[in-house]
Amino acid sequence: MPLHRRLLAEALGTMLLLAAVVGSGIMGVALSNGNDGIALLANAAATAGMLYVLIETLGPISGAHFNPAVTLAMRLRGEMSSAHAAAYIVVQVLAAIAGVLLAHAMFEQALLQPGTRVRSGGAQWLSEGVATCGLLLTILLGVRHRPKAIPALVAAYIFAAYWFTASTSFANPAVTMARSLTQTFAGIRPDDVAGFVFAQFAGMLLAIGIATLLLGRSEPASARG
Amino acid sequence: MPLHRRLLAEALGTMLLLAAVVGSGIMGVALSNGNDGIALLANAAATAGMLYVLIETLGPISGAHFNPAVTLAMRLRGEMSSAHAAAYIVVQVLAAIAGVLLAHAMFEQALLQPGTRVRSGGAQWLSEGVATCGLLLTILLGVRHRPKAIPALVAAYIFAAYWFTASTSFANPAVTMARSLTQTFAGIRPDDVAGFVFAQFAGMLLAIGIATLLLGRSEPASARG
Amino acid sequence: MPLHRRLLAEALGTMLLLAAVVGSGIMGVALSNGNDGIALLANAAATAGMLYVLIETLGPISGAHFNPAVTLAMRLRGEMSSAHAAAYIVVQVLAAIAGVLLAHAMFEQALLQPGTRVRSGGAQWLSEGVATCGLLLTILLGVRHRPKAIPALVAAYIFAAYWFTASTSFANPAVTMARSLTQTFAGIRPDDVAGFVFAQFAGMLLAIGIATLLLGRSEPASARG
Amino acid sequence: MPLHRRLLAEALGTMLLLAAVVGSGIMGVALSNGNDGIALLANAAATAGMLYVLIETLGPISGAHFNPAVTLAMRLRGEMSSAHAAAYIVVQVLAAIAGVLLAHAMFEQALLQPGTRVRSGGAQWLSEGVATCGLLLTILLGVRHRPKAIPALVAAYIFAAYWFTASTSFANPAVTMARSLTQTFAGIRPDDVAGFVFAQFAGMLLAIGIATLLLGRSEPASARG
Repeated sequence: MPLHRRLLAEALGTMLLLAAVVGSGIMGVALSNGNDGIALLANAAATAGMLYVLIETLGPISGAHFNPAVTLAMRLRGEMSSAHAAAYIVVQVLAAIAGVLLAHAMFEQALLQPGTRVRSGGAQWLSEGVATCGLLLTILLGVRHRPKAIPALVAAYIFAAYWFTASTSFANPAVTMARSLTQTFAGIRPDDVAGFVFAQFAGMLLAIGIATLLLGRSEPASARG
Repeated sequence: MPLHRRLLAEALGTMLLLAAVVGSGIMGVALSNGNDGIALLANAAATAGMLYVLIETLGPISGAHFNPAVTLAMRLRGEMSSAHAAAYIVVQVLAAIAGVLLAHAMFEQALLQPGTRVRSGGAQWLSEGVATCGLLLTILLGVRHRPKAIPALVAAYIFAAYWFTASTSFANPAVTMARSLTQTFAGIRPDDVAGFVFAQFAGMLLAIGIATLLLGRSEPASARG
Repeated sequence: MPLHRRLLAEALGTMLLLAAVVGSGIMGVALSNGNDGIALLANAAATAGMLYVLIETLGPISGAHFNPAVTLAMRLRGEMSSAHAAAYIVVQVLAAIAGVLLAHAMFEQALLQPGTRVRSGGAQWLSEGVATCGLLLTILLGVRHRPKAIPALVAAYIFAAYWFTASTSFANPAVTMARSLTQTFAGIRPDDVAGFVFAQFAGMLLAIGIATLLLGRSEPASARG
Repeated sequence: MPLHRRLLAEALGTMLLLAAVVGSGIMGVALSNGNDGIALLANAAATAGMLYVLIETLGPISGAHFNPAVTLAMRLRGEMSSAHAAAYIVVQVLAAIAGVLLAHAMFEQALLQPGTRVRSGGAQWLSEGVATCGLLLTILLGVRHRPKAIPALVAAYIFAAYWFTASTSFANPAVTMARSLTQTFAGIRPDDVAGFVFAQFAGMLLAIGIATLLLGRSEPASARG
């Protein structure tokens, strides 16, 4: 698959993922009369539904990373070159921002809104580390044992992680950066982005270690998708 | 498959789809004490469940379009004749209206109720364009990469799109026309139909363009179903 | 498969189905502070989850009818003898009643409670006819086109039908009779059972007619399961 | 598969399962303004999503028991040695406790909280017996008829059982012990653990009996996973 098609798939998928995350958060709050439990149910289910669709349809083109932590893990496992990984990550961050703008435009919101929601402290960072470690384990073990189920596995995992982590599981550095540009339900204060991203990469490295213990020597996940 | 069976399948499927969309909206509002978030959760999940069933069971007969935007896309890609496409679209519109009447009859409502819900303006049209573009991409990419998963993919996509677009994602000209005949939860003002339909066809054309970029030259999706 | 094992599977499945329908209704009302929309979401999702499990695990033994309307349809299509069909139906009704008693026992309710919920009139009967017709079409078309997906198809259909019909879709004469023995969320007044059952059989016959039109001559669905 | 990898998989899976059960309960209560129906919807769906992921990804390594009742059933059926079964159970209990501590840490709660929620009496024990019997039947019949669907079957069953049993279906002695260490939504009073565990083992034995009647002589479920 030529690189430009892979980058287009990453761009399209990451943009639509963010539009779904931010848009469904806005709709959830608008309709739920202050009951954030209903808003998060809708937000989590809409995100899971979109992830399932995007990974199933775009996975065969780009691998459907949509996430610098996933791309970096694939680089560390020797499945892509540094140059390709860097291109993936740049595209993911830009497309994630575009997705937030698209959600704002659909809901007649100011296009750029520096986030104000405080998400900081050890419990939040622990949550992001656990969330990202679990996501990477889902992918690394799923690629080995049930590659065809990866879209459903990632969707189900993220639905659960929205609820069982205190941070609602961003688990994705590009998503985190982009969500610092909204003041709506899914937002995060720009000052808090660095802590989340650091915790996410730590969780990713932990997942690679655990996967190696569980699976024996790592081997290429090229069967993926 | 003879044409009359294909048209019967399109009629049955489109009618039941509309009965599900409108009926679950009425039930959702009736039971939710003014909390529209709960009503939309029910409405989206019931619609997704019905779409999954209808595409799985009727897809092998007619392709399970139930949607003039899908039929027109298939015509543009050379997969059906103009005459067959026209017959599909006429049947879809009539059956969609019948489905609204059926929902009204089941809930003891006036059978014909010109819609009163205003859904207009650039943000709504952008939402419909995005919603329909995403639906067509789901189908066009899914047909290429995972034809057996099309029923689950369309259901998951529509669930997400109900929540992440400001218009709750009609994404279907026949559905839009039929929903202008109800004043319940799922309704739309007749004056606003044309804007929605225009945005939907624009989204469909955009999807064909993106799919061509992603997949290379378009080829028949005759493996579909 | 010997008949006594098939009847045991029908008994176990129908009992657990009713325990799930009635039990989740009781729990839903108990936890939802008068918001019946939340109760019906839980009730519909729990019923769908249980149906998926029961059809997948017991289908290979008995066909997983759990429903006299399904058994009678199979008899009419010549797939089982009258004696076997009669035995199935007797077991289904008795097991359904046992399931209601089991739910009452788990929730410390009086074991027998003649239902008080009025469910009568043309709109209710139309709802039951539509609900049962749709269920039988799901099964008859699914058996032909996607037999392995029958458990998921029936579960998704029933979830949708709980919401889009005014009667919350009993769609099953044994379920209807048994639910006349509870005064909880899922109940029905004994006087209203006959109207429901009549509408259900009418819907079943309509489904057989439509399926014949759609599929051509009927043929044994012995590939089912 | 070497034993230490199997035990690591049991430990990881049981820990994450408990983190999901307890964490999503805390989040559900925090967001739902006293509407426990919404909290239990989130709790049940998050648990189901996590179970699906853990069984799919870890099943090929350890069998994905995560539950002493399942391990004991496999021992009784002669599929594992007493020594291995004992090691599994010790690891499950310790990992379950670790999962509760992890959830508490993510939500900035006191790490150890002796449970205060009373769950006792015949109706609760009946509920746990039914819940565990159903879980084991799902596994024993699923292993025979649809081994690839076990992850989805267990997830769907547990979602339903959270709602249709009065005890919200612990159905797992390790989970029960660990949940006696939290005062949050998912907690249980330590004094009530023994009754639950006894009922769970009784339900497990009943399931083995019913499965033998349904399937004929028991045979190894080594095709599982």
